[in-house]
Amino acid sequence: MAEKIAGILGGMGPEATVDLMQRVIHFTHAQDDIDHVRCIVDNNPKVPSRIKALLEGGSVSPGPCLAEMGRKLEQWGADFLCIPCNTAHNYYKDVQDAVSIPVLNMVELTSAAVAEACPGARKAGILCSPAVRITKLYEEPCRRLGIEPVYATSEKEQQLLAVIKKIKTGDTGPAVYESYQTVIADVCGQGADALVIACTELGILHDAKYPRPVIDAADVLAKAIVGIAKNTLPFPTR
Amino acid sequence: MAEKIAGILGGMGPEATVDLMQRVIHFTHAQDDIDHVRCIVDNNPKVPSRIKALLEGGSVSPGPCLAEMGRKLEQWGADFLCIPCNTAHNYYKDVQDAVSIPVLNMVELTSAAVAEACPGARKAGILCSPAVRITKLYEEPCRRLGIEPVYATSEKEQQLLAVIKKIKTGDTGPAVYESYQTVIADVCGQGADALVIACTELGILHDAKYPRPVIDAADVLAKAIVGIAKNTLPFPTR
Repeated sequence: MAEKIAGILGGMGPEATVDLMQRVIHFTHAQDDIDHVRCIVDNNPKVPSRIKALLEGGSVSPGPCLAEMGRKLEQWGADFLCIPCNTAHNYYKDVQDAVSIPVLNMVELTSAAVAEACPGARKAGILCSPAVRITKLYEEPCRRLGIEPVYATSEKEQQLLAVIKKIKTGDTGPAVYESYQTVIADVCGQGADALVIACTELGILHDAKYPRPVIDAADVLAKAIVGIAKNTLPFPTR
Repeated sequence: MAEKIAGILGGMGPEATVDLMQRVIHFTHAQDDIDHVRCIVDNNPKVPSRIKALLEGGSVSPGPCLAEMGRKLEQWGADFLCIPCNTAHNYYKDVQDAVSIPVLNMVELTSAAVAEACPGARKAGILCSPAVRITKLYEEPCRRLGIEPVYATSEKEQQLLAVIKKIKTGDTGPAVYESYQTVIADVCGQGADALVIACTELGILHDAKYPRPVIDAADVLAKAIVGIAKNTLPFPTR
């Protein structure tokens, strides 16, 4: 069976997209270039701000821009699409409705990965931007699997947002790590049996320490891309 | 003036493309996503082998595949193109002839960067795969600027090829560095006033020590992409 081509709606942020591409390479068993997965990528940092539209009452929805990116990737030859940004999954339906190929849902895939990796887990600590909590992205996918999502408390959530913003400026220094660790401790203190890295920026902090089993949404997505492209995972239905 | 969109003919290898995208981000002064450069990328590791076609008498030229990638990127909306692989510049003309937008020539840009950074340099040590030496990619661009390209001697060239292959398997351990350093010493021993990292894999060895001024072709290309996209450099003529 011919290998599939992955289309990536990227740029949210651009570094998270590059990080996902790196993970796709990492999870591929390759002896030479040709063994790798072909990815066509729109690393588009000009997508209207998700935060502004979702939380700050902005009038420009990212939906139409993302739908157009999806259409272009399909026309270009992508067999399936993915969106390496948790928050942008609020516009998942806009993209899926715009194309005839399947769009991987990172939030659904990640919730399923938690249930599979941590059977019996009651609470999953979702490490994410406030937008992901407020828009309840992980609520239904987790609760359907019997898992309650828990989040950083108010003050720590602001601290986590500051960490994410620092990473977006390219700062991954010791102070950023230190701040992130106190957020992780806060989430664990709320009874999380498992942790979910539900912000592609946070996955860039490769040396962070997690005192609970941890599922990184970016890893889940990267593994799905490799498996689907290489036909070792079933091709998703729409 | 509107920002430009960069189109990247990638996948040779895929990691070098990801590394270039990372450098583009690194060289961009950004406070938020929107400040970054939009890159549309075909990270296509299925391009026919350049080594086989150029050195091993293979019958499949990468030219038509690269030309088609260029055409698709132009159709998709790229304002200019680039190819983050030195060896693939043997097919530069195939790509440029296939599109109506400019294609940056990394070899020309890098040669010019050597002349600019090291005025008076007579000899530039080209750290590259044998394919780049044998196909004389750097000969004319350097000699036009009064610079003679010099290369690792036969035995050291084979050692350098082994280093490149190791990096392609993900090995960047101490033995790889040690081997690379002896190649650098060999090239300096031939009178190089400046060194050129003319293989995108070698640029991944970030801790290598260079006893002469060094120009990394991947950095030159990344800076050109940012400058052209942001209109701080003149838009190239074809």
